[in-house]
Order: sequence, then structure tokens, then C-alpha cells
Amino acid sequence: MATAHLAAWAAALRYNALPPSVVQAAVRSFYNLAGCAVGGSAHPAAAIARASVSPFAGPPTSSVLGCRGHRTDANSAALLNGISSHVHDYDDTHLDTIIHPAGPVVSALLAVAELREPVNGNDFILALVAGIEAECKAGLAVWPDHYDVGWHITSTSGSIGAAVAVGKLLNLDVEAMQHAIGIAASQVTGLREQFGSMTKSFHPGRAAQNGLLAAFLASNGYDSSLQSLEAKRGWANVVSASNDIQARMDTLGKTWEILKNSFKPFPCGIVIHPVIDACIQIHHDMNKDKSAEQSPDASLIQSVHVEIHPLVLELTGKKTPKTGLEGKFSVYHSAAVALLYGKATPAQYEDAVVQDPAVIQLRGKVEATVNNELRTDEAKVVVRFAQDAFEKHVEHAVGSVQVPMTNEQLEEKFLDQVSSVLGQQQAKKASQICWNLENVTEMKEITLELQ
Amino acid sequence: MATAHLAAWAAALRYNALPPSVVQAAVRSFYNLAGCAVGGSAHPAAAIARASVSPFAGPPTSSVLGCRGHRTDANSAALLNGISSHVHDYDDTHLDTIIHPAGPVVSALLAVAELREPVNGNDFILALVAGIEAECKAGLAVWPDHYDVGWHITSTSGSIGAAVAVGKLLNLDVEAMQHAIGIAASQVTGLREQFGSMTKSFHPGRAAQNGLLAAFLASNGYDSSLQSLEAKRGWANVVSASNDIQARMDTLGKTWEILKNSFKPFPCGIVIHPVIDACIQIHHDMNKDKSAEQSPDASLIQSVHVEIHPLVLELTGKKTPKTGLEGKFSVYHSAAVALLYGKATPAQYEDAVVQDPAVIQLRGKVEATVNNELRTDEAKVVVRFAQDAFEKHVEHAVGSVQVPMTNEQLEEKFLDQVSSVLGQQQAKKASQICWNLENVTEMKEITLELQ
Repeated sequence: MATAHLAAWAAALRYNALPPSVVQAAVRSFYNLAGCAVGGSAHPAAAIARASVSPFAGPPTSSVLGCRGHRTDANSAALLNGISSHVHDYDDTHLDTIIHPAGPVVSALLAVAELREPVNGNDFILALVAGIEAECKAGLAVWPDHYDVGWHITSTSGSIGAAVAVGKLLNLDVEAMQHAIGIAASQVTGLREQFGSMTKSFHPGRAAQNGLLAAFLASNGYDSSLQSLEAKRGWANVVSASNDIQARMDTLGKTWEILKNSFKPFPCGIVIHPVIDACIQIHHDMNKDKSAEQSPDASLIQSVHVEIHPLVLELTGKKTPKTGLEGKFSVYHSAAVALLYGKATPAQYEDAVVQDPAVIQLRGKVEATVNNELRTDEAKVVVRFAQDAFEKHVEHAVGSVQVPMTNEQLEEKFLDQVSSVLGQQQAKKASQICWNLENVTEMKEITLELQ
Repeated sequence: MATAHLAAWAAALRYNALPPSVVQAAVRSFYNLAGCAVGGSAHPAAAIARASVSPFAGPPTSSVLGCRGHRTDANSAALLNGISSHVHDYDDTHLDTIIHPAGPVVSALLAVAELREPVNGNDFILALVAGIEAECKAGLAVWPDHYDVGWHITSTSGSIGAAVAVGKLLNLDVEAMQHAIGIAASQVTGLREQFGSMTKSFHPGRAAQNGLLAAFLASNGYDSSLQSLEAKRGWANVVSASNDIQARMDTLGKTWEILKNSFKPFPCGIVIHPVIDACIQIHHDMNKDKSAEQSPDASLIQSVHVEIHPLVLELTGKKTPKTGLEGKFSVYHSAAVALLYGKATPAQYEDAVVQDPAVIQLRGKVEATVNNELRTDEAKVVVRFAQDAFEKHVEHAVGSVQVPMTNEQLEEKFLDQVSSVLGQQQAKKASQICWNLENVTEMKEITLELQ
């Protein structure tokens, strides 16, 4: 009865039953996602997607984030915002499943929130929480077999999360919610083979659409199996060799998955994050004395030695990246930019930076040694000059469960992304209103500032 | 290199390279599908779907079959025509995989054919053949494991077929065609758990949309993996425990899957077809003497004995169906209506007929005996009156590979379905123009008559 249980739980969920920590996590998840969607809107994949759906686009009810004045129909907006939210691999991560939960759910919700009567911040948060819990519980039920065989769990679970979220916004009753879940469960989107191509970011966008359409069909009486998740030939059994779908759904409202949502400080594979964290700290140590005479010149660095978990070289061992995308899979490039610029934002993963002679020179001085005793969120870095050296041992990288990004760090990330598209002044306005999600009387107050 | 091979084959395919038998099979596949889509448009599932997509609908470029004057954007039309084409389970069947191939492919193509510059009949047939071959080869590669685990193979393969078909219409080059296939492969739609619900017919409609969107994205430069079908974490390996994707794709253009496409004479599970075939023949034998005095009254039937393959009772053994849908899973109801009406069309599977006392009475006289030596397309039927009896042994049911439906039978089926929605006169006009598919200069000549 996993489907019925999820539907009943979601339909009954009330805003005043949400613990304050859950509301706070929802606001942070939304805030981070909004910044990523605006930042990603300038990526070529997002532009191609906008052009591709334009021949079919309907009434311009819903905002395309990052594109000034661009509104389109809700179904198209869900796709476009979903794509741009994920295209820099910079969004949120539910660490137990490596689902990026906000993309499918928020993209679908934002599109629908502008379609009909105004939706206020509390209703939006309520639907967002219902969707993210549904998505992460479904994902946990099939993890890890489902991911191991090759499914992109963000979008396969995301379709279900988006359906529950939109279903909640549409006030579906329990049976209609079961149908929405069923229709969404039949749309299993996302192969890991697409990692490294634009289709990776298509996945959360399509998941948002899958869930949105499922909820609208169900709201009008379109039916599905009532046991779509748990039946013998239902979702969990078909997409995974083993699952505990019923047991997972029983934990709804008991453990909140959104509390385990984390945020990426850097737009690249999470295994490089401790190295970047250490190198940024060393950059600041190197430059903390403002007098140029005393501050060492990065070009004088003789060697950079990083000590890392074995997965780092397996996943991000590219020695001579040629493009920005390849740079994201290079611990060498990432260490170099972190030391040179003191940051690793999307700007440091642009083609021009990867091809910059100063970056290439420093990259060549980076040596990596595997240490099996390190955790995945741990790294040691030593930067040597002729005379002295800087060392840093990061035990838990920023963005990990132990060292979550602070609101200030989230804001810095948001402002960096949104400024690059909408300018600094607009970024500040957008940041303020996004932090205020709980109190807005209609979501348009927010979406208008994200364009 | 299965993906590259499929893309190259499809991109290079020319109309004058199609054997005449393939063109004929394409016309018959199109003709049958068009009738099903018009006939299915009156089903509640189709009406709900129309209402559900209307808030998002864009420029009304493309015809919604069966709905006079109703045009919508191409993406919505693909969904709606795909749903109505399958909602009566009355469409075509590729018997080696039980894929219903025309629904996803034709629904996507019709929508796009009206979107831009006119598409003529030859170009339409060419794209249709490319799509159906892609779809059936992909399906064969993962059959039967893929179906056994619970995937609705019609739509999982259908997304790929629709992408290739629309890609062909858009004249994609080989690499763009690979991207279209990849984006489509990432959208694995259709769980068998949905059989018996409206979501079953949603599957081919969504597959049509999946392929359409994939082809449009690829045509604008959206990229995917170039090995989406065969890679370690690509489509074939992820959706099936075993596959021969490369070997299957190597048969493209050598064996034509469309030649194995068959057509359902009756809108119900194919295993009951030999019983229905026999009962219809007995109905005609009973009534061949037009004089009412001599023609026996069906109400005087004392018993009906059917001898059948074991699967018939396993799949369609419902003794007391209550609804039209349940009637489709009842060999008892199907035998009764075939004897009473001499036909088994969607009209004989309406709720009112299943609840008709005369039908219920005759249904109660039907006895079924399993005979393990019969084939699935074989049945024996004996109808006893007080004085005499009628017997029939059907060795291969109509619609089987051995006894394909003739063009005349297809036309009768078409006229029956289309008349019920558009009236007899319009049905005849529509039939004529659909048979003439090869020679139309633009597809609008056809779609205008299917509304």
C-alpha cells in the first residue's frame, strides 16, 4: 500500500505540522535552486531548449527564470527552469541518494504557481516539502541498485516528487493523488549514460513536466493503477533489483529527508570539494597580508601536493582538460583555480579559464596522491614556495553534512550566479525576496525578480 | 555502434529504396491507426486528456483526429492522437514483440506534418517506415526480458521510433539523429502495471511526445551521448537483463519489421480472437437463410462449447464482467456478442451491452474447455439448439500472420469506427483519402477528412 500511503500522507499534510527546521530547509532549498536556475539560463543548453519548445508554446503564464520578461506556458516553463537549474551541476544534493531534489519539484511548482489563482509562500513551501519527501523516499527505496544499473535517480524519482508537489498545489484528494503518482511512475526518465552531455540537465526538466502533466491529468479524472509504486510490475520492482518501498513510505513524516539536503559550494563533482576548500583557504592565507611585497605570488609556487580519497582520481583525474566541462572533471584544474582566484564558481569553469596559460602552468605543478584512509569529504593540501609552504587539512569539506553551507555562503553563491545574468542590483533584490519565501502573498512577487 | 548504425541507416533511407510490400504495409498501418485514433477520440480518456493539456496548448497547427475543427499545437496533438489510437486496444501489433508500433510513430508524425511546410505522402511513408523499423528493432533487441520485468514495450520502444520518424521528417543528419535517439532513449515510458487503466493509452501518446521533443531538441543542437542505446549504462542494458542491440540493428533494411505488423479485427485481447472468429462465422451460418421462419433464434441456443488454448482462460476467464472494459477480458462475453450480433467492435464492449439481459443469458450458456494441443490462434466452437448444432474449427484466427486482415476487412473496421464519430458519409471520404496516402501532396488533405 505504498502508493496509497504516500498519497494519503501528502494529501493530509498541513503547513502548521511542518517543524521549523523543515521550513528552513525548504526555504534554503528553494533559494539555492532559484539562483542555479537563473545562473544556468545563460548556458547554451538552456537557449537551445527555449528555441526548441517555442513552436508549441501556449499561453505565457509562467516565468522563465533568468530571461527578462520571458513567460511561456506552464508546461514549457517547467522544462526550461528544470534544465537551467541543473546545467551547471551546481544545485542541491540529498546525500543519502545523490538525488538533486529541488530541480524537478521547484521547476514544476513555480510554473503552476503562476498559472491559476495566486499561490502564497506557505502553500508553496508545503507543496515543495511534500514533493521532496516523496521523491527522496522513493529514491531511498530503490537505492543503490537503481542507480548502479544506470538510472539517473534525480529524474526517475523526480517525476514522482513533481507529481506529488503539483498534486498538493491542486489539492488532489487521496485517490486522485494515487493516480497522479501512477501516471508519473510510468514516465521513468534519465539514463546515467547521458552524464557529460546536455541531456543530463534535460532529465530534471523533463521530470518536472512528467509530474506536472500527471497531476493535471489526475485532477481531471484520468486514472492509473492505485498500486503503481509497489505492484509486482509497478515502479519499484521494474526499476530496481531490490527495494523496500513500503518500509520507506512508512517513514514519511517521521524522518524528514529535506533536512539531509545539502548545497554545492562549487559547480563540479562533489569528490573534489575538499581539495577546493583547502586550496581556497590557502589562497586566503597566502593573501591575508594585504601588502603586495609580503604576499607570495602564485606564479612562484613550486609544487602543489594534494592527498585524496581514491574516488577523486577515478572520477576527476583529467590531467589536461580542454573545455570548461572537462575542467569539472579535473582535480588539477580545480586546485589551480582555487589557489589562483580563491574561488570555484561557474566562471572558473569556462573554456577561456581552462585554456588560460597561467591556469595551465599552475595545473601542471599539481601532484595527487591517493590515501585510502581519507574520507570522501576529506583532503590534505601542501603548497610549496622556494622559502616556505602553506598546508591545510580539511576534515569535512564545506557543503558536507558536518559543515553545511551557511546562509551567508548560500547568499554569496546566489549573488554570484544571479549577478552574472541579471546584474548586481537585481541580484540583491532577488536574494532578499527569495529569503522571504515564507511571507510572500503570491509567488509572482518572487518570480518577477528572478528575471 | 548500434546508435550510430541506426542513425546512419535512417538518415540514408530513400523512398525509392522501399520495397513495394513495405510501402503497402505502411499504408495499411497508417490506415488502421487513423481509424483507431478517430474511433478512440470519443472515449472519456481522450476527452480528459484534451481538457488537461488545454491550459498549456500553443498555436493550433495540428489536427486532433475525430474532433471536428479541433487543432492544437503539435506537441499536444501527438499526445492526444496517441491516446485515442490505443484506448480501445484495437490498433496494430508487431507479433514478434507485441509492440503496437503505429501509435507513437504516426501520432508524432501527423502532428509535425502539419506544423511547417507541407509534407507529402511519400515523405510521410518514408518517415513512418524509418520510425517503425527503429522501434521494432529496439524492441526485439530487449525482448522478452524487458517485457517480462514489466515494461510496456509499445511506449518504451515507441519513444525511440517516434524520434527517428520525426528526425527523418526534419532531415536530421547522422549525428543529430544520434542525439535525437539518445534524448528519446532517456525517456523510458510505460509500466505494464497500468494495463486496465487509462494510463495504458497514455503510454503511446507520451511516447509520441518523447520522440517529437527529442527530435526538435536535436535539430537545434541539443546533444546526448552518441552511444545511448548500446553503452554500458545505456538504454538496452538499463531496461533489460539481456539484449542483442547491435545484432538487431545490423538487420535494418535486411528484414523489414513492418511486414510483420498485424491488425486486430476485434478490440480485445488477441487470445480470444479465434473464438470470436468462429462465433461470427456460426452467426452467419445460422442466419444465412434470410427467412425468419427458418433462421434459428439465438435465444433458443441451449449451449455453447468453446475449446481453447490454456492462455485464454488465464487472461480472459472473467465469467461475469460488469463493465465494457471487463468484457474485453471475458471469453464468455465475447462469444455471446459474436453469436448475437455477428461482430465484435467497440460497440459490443460498451457497458450497456455487457449489462444487456440477452447477452448475459447467452453468456451463461458458454462453457470453456482447455485443450493444450491448440495453438493460441486456434479454437473450436459448437453451438447446440434443441434440434441441431453448428460447429466451427478455426485453425488460424483472422488477423493472424497466416490469415491477415484483407484490405476489405480493414476498411469495414475503419468505417465502423469512423462512422460512429464522424458519420457514414464522412467516414467514406476519410477512408478513400487514407488509402490514397502515397499520392497526397500534403498531409492536410488527409487530416482534414479525419475530423
